[in-house]
Amino acid sequence: MLKHPQQKYRPFAPVALPDRTWPDAVLTRAPIWLSTDLRDGNQALIEPMDIARKLRMFQQLVKIGFKEIEVGFPSASQTEFDFVRLLIEGGHIPDDVSIQVLTQARSHLIERTFESLGGAKRVIVHAYNAVAPIMRRVVLGQDEDGIVELASSHARQIKALAAARPGTDWRFEYSPEMFSGTELAFSKRVVDAVTAVWEPTPERKCIVNLPSTVEHSTPNIFADMIEWMHRHLERRDSIVLSVHPHNDRGTGTAAGEFALMAGADRVEGCLFGNGERTGNVDLVNIALNLYTQGVDPQLDFSDIDEVRRCVEHCTQIPVHPRHPYVGDLVYTSFSGSHQDAIRKAFAARQEGEIWDMPYLPIDPKDLGRSYDAVIRVNSQSGKGGIAYLLENEYGLELPRRLQIEFSQVVQRVMDDMGKELSAADIHAIFEREYAIGDAGTSVLQPQMNEVGGGAMRISAEVVLGGWMGRVQGEGNGPIDAFVNALGARAGLPIRVLDYHEHAIGSGADARAVAYLELRVGDETRHGVGIDGSIVRASMQAILSGLRRTPAFAMPTSQEQAT
Amino acid sequence: MLKHPQQKYRPFAPVALPDRTWPDAVLTRAPIWLSTDLRDGNQALIEPMDIARKLRMFQQLVKIGFKEIEVGFPSASQTEFDFVRLLIEGGHIPDDVSIQVLTQARSHLIERTFESLGGAKRVIVHAYNAVAPIMRRVVLGQDEDGIVELASSHARQIKALAAARPGTDWRFEYSPEMFSGTELAFSKRVVDAVTAVWEPTPERKCIVNLPSTVEHSTPNIFADMIEWMHRHLERRDSIVLSVHPHNDRGTGTAAGEFALMAGADRVEGCLFGNGERTGNVDLVNIALNLYTQGVDPQLDFSDIDEVRRCVEHCTQIPVHPRHPYVGDLVYTSFSGSHQDAIRKAFAARQEGEIWDMPYLPIDPKDLGRSYDAVIRVNSQSGKGGIAYLLENEYGLELPRRLQIEFSQVVQRVMDDMGKELSAADIHAIFEREYAIGDAGTSVLQPQMNEVGGGAMRISAEVVLGGWMGRVQGEGNGPIDAFVNALGARAGLPIRVLDYHEHAIGSGADARAVAYLELRVGDETRHGVGIDGSIVRASMQAILSGLRRTPAFAMPTSQEQAT
Repeated sequence: MLKHPQQKYRPFAPVALPDRTWPDAVLTRAPIWLSTDLRDGNQALIEPMDIARKLRMFQQLVKIGFKEIEVGFPSASQTEFDFVRLLIEGGHIPDDVSIQVLTQARSHLIERTFESLGGAKRVIVHAYNAVAPIMRRVVLGQDEDGIVELASSHARQIKALAAARPGTDWRFEYSPEMFSGTELAFSKRVVDAVTAVWEPTPERKCIVNLPSTVEHSTPNIFADMIEWMHRHLERRDSIVLSVHPHNDRGTGTAAGEFALMAGADRVEGCLFGNGERTGNVDLVNIALNLYTQGVDPQLDFSDIDEVRRCVEHCTQIPVHPRHPYVGDLVYTSFSGSHQDAIRKAFAARQEGEIWDMPYLPIDPKDLGRSYDAVIRVNSQSGKGGIAYLLENEYGLELPRRLQIEFSQVVQRVMDDMGKELSAADIHAIFEREYAIGDAGTSVLQPQMNEVGGGAMRISAEVVLGGWMGRVQGEGNGPIDAFVNALGARAGLPIRVLDYHEHAIGSGADARAVAYLELRVGDETRHGVGIDGSIVRASMQAILSGLRRTPAFAMPTSQEQAT
Repeated sequence: MLKHPQQKYRPFAPVALPDRTWPDAVLTRAPIWLSTDLRDGNQALIEPMDIARKLRMFQQLVKIGFKEIEVGFPSASQTEFDFVRLLIEGGHIPDDVSIQVLTQARSHLIERTFESLGGAKRVIVHAYNAVAPIMRRVVLGQDEDGIVELASSHARQIKALAAARPGTDWRFEYSPEMFSGTELAFSKRVVDAVTAVWEPTPERKCIVNLPSTVEHSTPNIFADMIEWMHRHLERRDSIVLSVHPHNDRGTGTAAGEFALMAGADRVEGCLFGNGERTGNVDLVNIALNLYTQGVDPQLDFSDIDEVRRCVEHCTQIPVHPRHPYVGDLVYTSFSGSHQDAIRKAFAARQEGEIWDMPYLPIDPKDLGRSYDAVIRVNSQSGKGGIAYLLENEYGLELPRRLQIEFSQVVQRVMDDMGKELSAADIHAIFEREYAIGDAGTSVLQPQMNEVGGGAMRISAEVVLGGWMGRVQGEGNGPIDAFVNALGARAGLPIRVLDYHEHAIGSGADARAVAYLELRVGDETRHGVGIDGSIVRASMQAILSGLRRTPAFAMPTSQEQAT
């Protein structure tokens, strides 16, 4: 039993700031964004990213529009060091992007950090040391004067090392680590000592970053702390005031927004809130909150699912289906009254009007998503649901996004027929919709050969919606090769977004079901294939998805010669 | 490209409340909690709960300590109606628990709602109608007077129906639906009209529930709105002021906390934030935020993983690994400097002292969890990680919690040996730790028979840590039967918490690997088994886990007769 917390925990001390201004502030422009996906995000993974994943993440961040990207902690390991070198020597860093590197305020680590940076154009050197009482007492064994001396002596070292390397545009960032658990007056004292060394100017600012290393308090208290620092720091006009919120109390997004309302200029975080423990603040969330208030976030999430897939691939952690703006279920309505209200409001809306849609705080199209209404078959009971019936009666385990897609197919049929549907009805709709067992959507005589370098070449006769012909292509494996073959023939890029496969039946009767989510041009569609062979099931699924994509067409008959 | 949001979206209008008091408020006691897991949570599932899942969820909510539970929308479908009847007629509702039922403010739905409630002891009848301008204009086609008349006439109907059924302790709740998108003055007007009908008293209060049906604004604005209503509503001393926050902007937890600081008495939400779209506010999060501030939340999450498993089973949606207080990764530290600080602070802490631990805002033991330090093998590179090496070199795909558990085994070995480990070293540690191929942990001659009602009886010779004997038991399947057999023999309950299985190799050489997470008494341990048969692999995994559990012992030799 949870009992007597008052004997074990203490309430967080409020800040005496009766004249606070942030509750009346309204955000009207985007902050400076710093992505720490490759540093704080990466260090918090069971399986940290390998070089290929790191590079993919870096390129995704650049594509989104980040101009400041923390790429690692180069003095921490050879891998981290090597990645910084790869970025610089490989020419991967656009001219308008600054890379940021983290280092503890320790001399040999700072030296090693500068070693990693030779040849870089724009760099932010980010130094930190712990300042909180628990760390001073238990971990560092230093008094306040000792901490101030530690911070300022290493600030001097950084300044000197940078001055000796004039080929790079250097900026400096300092974080009083565990700011959120530190007396405000002491945080101010340490920061003032560091900025006294760095001597920033309004034209040449330094960055002061205030982390809620652990989120201890309600976000109004964090906002009060930031407003207090904003008002009391020396050289404020020469400082970019940054925050780095974590999410231990589930209020990281609010803390980040309030910090900006309280005077911060910049926010550090990760895509979809990756990072230590409960994560860093979710920068996508803050950016899109600004967007829905009419403020340009200066970051591009117009294909948010592509960003999601990149993050899921790199972190190997799925994004939750209810995650704001991006989860599989966030533009889905299940309730009939919600669906009715949305339908009426869409009908009443004129193009170009202000967005005012019940139950949809953002137009899903702005993010490359669509609004989904999920129909209930029979009743709200689980045993009457589409997915339940298909799984229990036919052994088909539909992936979540396919369930959503297929429920809309069923809804259209129900609207036409105006009657309740049996399991057999639903299964028949499923087979028709996904062309299961349809000779008009089939692959004949596929031939596969290994070619050099682990690649595979495929050649097959294809029947697809009245078209028939032979296609050939290469790829990493049979699916990749077949998709390339079809895409080349049709002149439209095809990508496989997601893939599931399972067996139905067992022994000699066992068959494989493949479910593929395809991106064809600008459209996303699922395809399903069933066959005794997993390769043929996958190929059938690709054809099934293409058949369902209006924009996809094979070339006309004149071009059909094989 | 996301562009020109200012032409499509408008900023939310602030509330003119310069004398707001909530930013200085400190929460010192728990609110009244209302779980809507069985209503808002359930209606937002692709596969809504069946009766068995609903009953399990209800019993879990009672066990946690909820005294007010919204159990459904009985007029919406026969399934919903039947579940309310089942709860009442089956005697599942403790005397101190009120069930709550939702109904639209429509006459035939209200009548049907009361029909479902015969024989109930304590009931909250919760009526709502939409009040927001978009709904008045586009959906309902009603002016303000029409909405007020609609709300008050149905309030009269509810009052009359309740008065005619004196056997039940009735309470009433009213929600101005889409409060968050409605002019405050109009929300007040409608609510005042309803409470004028119900005539609540300080001794006999009614509930006024203010939903952020869609979260439109930063949570400070929601707090201002609640404080405004708190100050301006008529009959405030006779009202339990409730809020129902959603999470579209990722700030639902903050909105819930601020609403309580602004004067609300009660909060409606779901476990771990299930519910429409991005979910309802997460009540576990708010409760444990209070707990870590020294306030007794009056809800019991001392075995939070049991609650998580129940929610995952009932909703068929996984809880995210970074979800506050409960995710797999939230008490895990990866960084060496974090681990060092935590180690020193644990060493310095005296039992009974205030909790002040770097990087751990709550003692994981309070929730039945443990702190996990994950060691990096070789470097931060993905290709040097334990899970990577086991998967790529040996085909073993460890589930996440097993990865965390095993990393600590490796850490202990590394601390002892003081050297870097190769893939072969790690594999050898894995085989030793989980007794793979160890004749001293094995099952011989298992015999299985189907018995009546789908049950299975199992009998097997077991060798386990020096003990050898025959065990027998029954269960739903071989794993359940074997666990029951061993638990009965040892006199200690064993539960299977999680189960994963995959093949290594293919064709005639294929073997199955089973990974089981077991709860033995108060301890949680993983076991691993590898065998050509999936049944034997699972049985081996059970023995492997038991072998690793200090509290588990088979009876002494005198009792070994079979």
